[in-house]
Amino acid sequence: MATVRPDYRSVIIENCRPTVDAGAFDAKACAGVPMRVSADVFAHGHDHVVAWVRWGTPRLHGTPAQTLPRSWREQMLDHPGGDHFTTWITPTGVGHLAFEIVGAVDDFGGWLVDLKARLAAGQDVTLELEVGASLCSDRAQLPHVAARDRASLRSLAFQLRHDNVPVSRRIEAASTTRVRRLMDRTLDRNNATVAGPFLVWVDGDLAGFSAWYEMFPRSEGAKPPRGGTLRTAARRLPDIAAMGFDVVYLPPIHPIGSTHRKGANNTEEATRDDVGSPWAIGSAAGGHTAVDPNLGSLADFDGFVVAARAAGLTVALDFALQCSPDHPWVLEHPEWFAHRPDGSIRYAGNPPKKYQDIYPLDFTCRDKQGLWNAARDVVLFWCDRGVRIFRVDNPHTKPLRFWEWLIAQIRRRHPDAIFLAEAFTRPIVMQHLAKVGFTQSYTYFTWRNSKAELAEYFGQLATPPSVDYFRPNFWTNTPDILHATLQQGGPAAFRLRLVLAALGAASWGMYSGYELCENTPVAPGSEEYLHSEKYELRPRDWSRPDSLAPLIGRVNEIRRRHRAAVSQLATLRVHHVDNDALFCFSRSQPDNSDVLLVIVNLNPHGAESGTTWIDLAALGIDTDIAFEAHDEVTDTTYIWQGPCNFVHLDPTHQPAHILHLRKR
Amino acid sequence: MATVRPDYRSVIIENCRPTVDAGAFDAKACAGVPMRVSADVFAHGHDHVVAWVRWGTPRLHGTPAQTLPRSWREQMLDHPGGDHFTTWITPTGVGHLAFEIVGAVDDFGGWLVDLKARLAAGQDVTLELEVGASLCSDRAQLPHVAARDRASLRSLAFQLRHDNVPVSRRIEAASTTRVRRLMDRTLDRNNATVAGPFLVWVDGDLAGFSAWYEMFPRSEGAKPPRGGTLRTAARRLPDIAAMGFDVVYLPPIHPIGSTHRKGANNTEEATRDDVGSPWAIGSAAGGHTAVDPNLGSLADFDGFVVAARAAGLTVALDFALQCSPDHPWVLEHPEWFAHRPDGSIRYAGNPPKKYQDIYPLDFTCRDKQGLWNAARDVVLFWCDRGVRIFRVDNPHTKPLRFWEWLIAQIRRRHPDAIFLAEAFTRPIVMQHLAKVGFTQSYTYFTWRNSKAELAEYFGQLATPPSVDYFRPNFWTNTPDILHATLQQGGPAAFRLRLVLAALGAASWGMYSGYELCENTPVAPGSEEYLHSEKYELRPRDWSRPDSLAPLIGRVNEIRRRHRAAVSQLATLRVHHVDNDALFCFSRSQPDNSDVLLVIVNLNPHGAESGTTWIDLAALGIDTDIAFEAHDEVTDTTYIWQGPCNFVHLDPTHQPAHILHLRKR
Repeated sequence: MATVRPDYRSVIIENCRPTVDAGAFDAKACAGVPMRVSADVFAHGHDHVVAWVRWGTPRLHGTPAQTLPRSWREQMLDHPGGDHFTTWITPTGVGHLAFEIVGAVDDFGGWLVDLKARLAAGQDVTLELEVGASLCSDRAQLPHVAARDRASLRSLAFQLRHDNVPVSRRIEAASTTRVRRLMDRTLDRNNATVAGPFLVWVDGDLAGFSAWYEMFPRSEGAKPPRGGTLRTAARRLPDIAAMGFDVVYLPPIHPIGSTHRKGANNTEEATRDDVGSPWAIGSAAGGHTAVDPNLGSLADFDGFVVAARAAGLTVALDFALQCSPDHPWVLEHPEWFAHRPDGSIRYAGNPPKKYQDIYPLDFTCRDKQGLWNAARDVVLFWCDRGVRIFRVDNPHTKPLRFWEWLIAQIRRRHPDAIFLAEAFTRPIVMQHLAKVGFTQSYTYFTWRNSKAELAEYFGQLATPPSVDYFRPNFWTNTPDILHATLQQGGPAAFRLRLVLAALGAASWGMYSGYELCENTPVAPGSEEYLHSEKYELRPRDWSRPDSLAPLIGRVNEIRRRHRAAVSQLATLRVHHVDNDALFCFSRSQPDNSDVLLVIVNLNPHGAESGTTWIDLAALGIDTDIAFEAHDEVTDTTYIWQGPCNFVHLDPTHQPAHILHLRKR
Repeated sequence: MATVRPDYRSVIIENCRPTVDAGAFDAKACAGVPMRVSADVFAHGHDHVVAWVRWGTPRLHGTPAQTLPRSWREQMLDHPGGDHFTTWITPTGVGHLAFEIVGAVDDFGGWLVDLKARLAAGQDVTLELEVGASLCSDRAQLPHVAARDRASLRSLAFQLRHDNVPVSRRIEAASTTRVRRLMDRTLDRNNATVAGPFLVWVDGDLAGFSAWYEMFPRSEGAKPPRGGTLRTAARRLPDIAAMGFDVVYLPPIHPIGSTHRKGANNTEEATRDDVGSPWAIGSAAGGHTAVDPNLGSLADFDGFVVAARAAGLTVALDFALQCSPDHPWVLEHPEWFAHRPDGSIRYAGNPPKKYQDIYPLDFTCRDKQGLWNAARDVVLFWCDRGVRIFRVDNPHTKPLRFWEWLIAQIRRRHPDAIFLAEAFTRPIVMQHLAKVGFTQSYTYFTWRNSKAELAEYFGQLATPPSVDYFRPNFWTNTPDILHATLQQGGPAAFRLRLVLAALGAASWGMYSGYELCENTPVAPGSEEYLHSEKYELRPRDWSRPDSLAPLIGRVNEIRRRHRAAVSQLATLRVHHVDNDALFCFSRSQPDNSDVLLVIVNLNPHGAESGTTWIDLAALGIDTDIAFEAHDEVTDTTYIWQGPCNFVHLDPTHQPAHILHLRKR
């Protein structure tokens, strides 16, 4: 309803960032990583305005007013031009952060600008100087002004009134940065406009910067038909750590059902030796809180976690809320499943497709709260065993509000929990999962291969609203996705996609076998692997001389060396190159203290060369002075100057330049 | 704060339209004019969803819940594809309208689609038919289902179970529109998701469709140095009505100050005969509620209003909140003005410019509420004399929240009041004035002349968020704006800009003299008129044979004949023509029952021809069947077919085609 109470505040604040749907959901940030805060702030007429951001830790319960932080930190917003104000703040500590944007009329700033205009026009400004002086003395009267500032204000007033001093000198005295700060500090805030509070969820380190490695433990140390175990798989951990990964992600480690078990290459009939899909969860041996006996015991799992930690790795578990027909829940809680008129449980399927080895859970069943609690308790069970990272399988097939509730529940006890959404679905659903709390998201990266596709997608992910809440995790491949580019491009394609994934986003992932350039599809035109590890044991020879492991290690090492730049998605910029096979983008810290320029040859079949047109101004580099472009892969240094520089990339030797730009 | 209470509703609703800043301000609509309502509505997995809009008249006070309408109207949203849902509703009655978007899972629709997929794959669907049947019988149990519908549901259940009838027949029975309606009607709404309520301010006729004519009454019947009066000016009203205008707008009619009065062509010194600027309001004879004695009395004004009404015209007054140094308020309320240290009142100025004949009011002064109330009472004073339309002078130099308050105050008593914002300022401020309640807005139209400029601007105005709250009023010229296009293009330019203004927006305006193609600037490069009527009497010979009056009359007549199409900004579409001097756009009703295609030759200096590429699908016209394009100006009919049609426009004869497209 249009307000009829008068509101005397002059300043209007719009488009506050970071926000999600005008504050309906939390924005995201990471502890220790600068977060851009911005807003449009304006007033009527030609009033000047100033704006600042204040932020703090909200209290968790009570009315909105009660949840406001007890203490605020404050920082002025910069005014690059127009009505736009912006700055960067660095959240500290995991959990909720609340911020408000505050704006007020800058009477002193406006006075100073007008005064200079009058002076330039040769007008008498005696009266105007008196106006400024009394403005200062009035300020000095304000109750909130500190004693030290009162003195400064009075002395400034005195200087402005000092007839013996030339006008120009008096104006200089009023134009210093010190005075600007004094005026910002002492501003009358009674009529200030406040926008917010808005909430930001601040995550821990791995949420904002992580390299993931996916492995099937049963393949490690397997001697078919005998599979590997968590113990044998643990022996692989040092190699994975050596490649510079942070997270080792395991597909479901739970007992696998035998009813309607799928055979090799997803065939309907399984033989005695078929190991089955780990996503067909549950057997007499247990369900989502049990470990597959073939992999070992809970103790073995604990041992795996310890071994991973020792190697500097964090374990991520798969959270797939579905059951095999043999899952204990089928007997204990038939009410959690949808039934057909003949009394049988409805198996999964996207008609006409049928997945008889999977029973979906009915999240809207009569005992939904029982089911929701059980799902939450599964997560809490693994949290109690030291797990904090969950890769959620097909979250888009469960109610979006279920995830909002579950993630909030887990965070109350474990604010450092990380949830990666594996939702390859429509953009609006993928985005909404991030809105309701998923920490990271699988993306369409795998299907963005041309320069135009990559430029458009990178641009979208790096700008609001997406960048405020959607954290992309770029995967080069998954057990389900072997893209045609890899099938047809050979090792060169594997190298270039690796660089795009690892440097394009703050988090990236790889499914084992990628380092060996495995690229045979189950059928022409299919994105499924032949002999998919989902249904078979796949022991591999990691010592192969053509392994990409060394390159992967190098790239992850570069990521870590330039962590601050790679963590910052908002500053990602795509730069022009006059060759559509060459894709160029930069990663940088907000203050440009660390700048990486990545140039990738998207053509795996041949060498490409071209001339860059780098937006140097945006990267804080002077176009008139030569600078160093140090290739972090080959450890060679080029001396460049200006935006235009020639590049040549031959995929057989080098898939890309990863250049560290620095002053000489 | 992230919710921790479970929410079991499956459907998510986002991007509801029309809304302004997520409901922070009212959207706009007009009584009797269809309003597009849309939203993104989706659920998890492959659940099907349906959505509808419900709307009604909110109660004005109390908690949000209490203000909900007592009774709702309802309409299903169409589902053109993706997650987008949309429909058109037609508000009735002036005042607030509240609407909500409601979405729910469409179990029956999803069942039917899956069933057909299974059938197409040759699967046995006996069980599925039973699922559908019990779905119907369950529906029949729901308390809210009407008796008639219960019967229909039971009979449908019976048909689906009827083994003797072939499956295809049974599925047909479930696929009729009647059944679709039945299912929409009887849907279980307990788990429906509700978005809103959102508020829309519904205006009366002239707010959404109006042609304005601006005249200085003192020039009408003037015999310099003797000026015209409201009585002599009233004689001009029939001519204005004959040109098809709806609104006659008068610059300030109040007493004009003499202190620092401006002379002809805005010179500093005025002679005894200089009449002064009507915007220098106030003298000993009175202020904002008085009539300039030279124009007549309040009674004469009443007579003018009556005469206008008799001619079918509505009077609009200028509302300029500023004072001449002689304004009564200067003596009665010095506290309403800002003072300089020497005690003098601060005159207007944008340093170094000085406007000594104008004292701005200080809306943030100590007695601001007294001033705000006085301003409101001025508007109410003229409302009491039958005025409902106010053209507000420079609203952007007064606090935005003052306007929000004032317009709300006036609307409580006069919901049909119309406020036109004359704010030629930054886009964000211009837009915010519309957000806080201005009915119509002056625009940048005057400065949009090339095809690229017009296409970009028309597109922006016709799409959200702008179209939801910003009502453009296109002016060909004003006493302050004589654009170079008119100065250099001669009569042809006047004709083409007239067509663009009158058909590009639902409301347009013209300042008198335009029909005589007056185009001499006060100086080269200036947009000010020579001998500006702001400072001089400008009696004119309206009987000149080269007057554009007949064309203006014709164009306004066409507007009225196709009022429904011209009123609908949301359906405005720009179409391609392979000549950058030819600009083509269409205006149409949502159901395409009335379609206008306008093609303007933007080059006033020569004939242009080209081929159109009309988006016929959007206009509901079959590309394979010939259709009539009737030129409403020349009354000639062309037979066209398909999107590509040749056009030739010679500005000396015809500035534009205004084509009514219709089936043969």
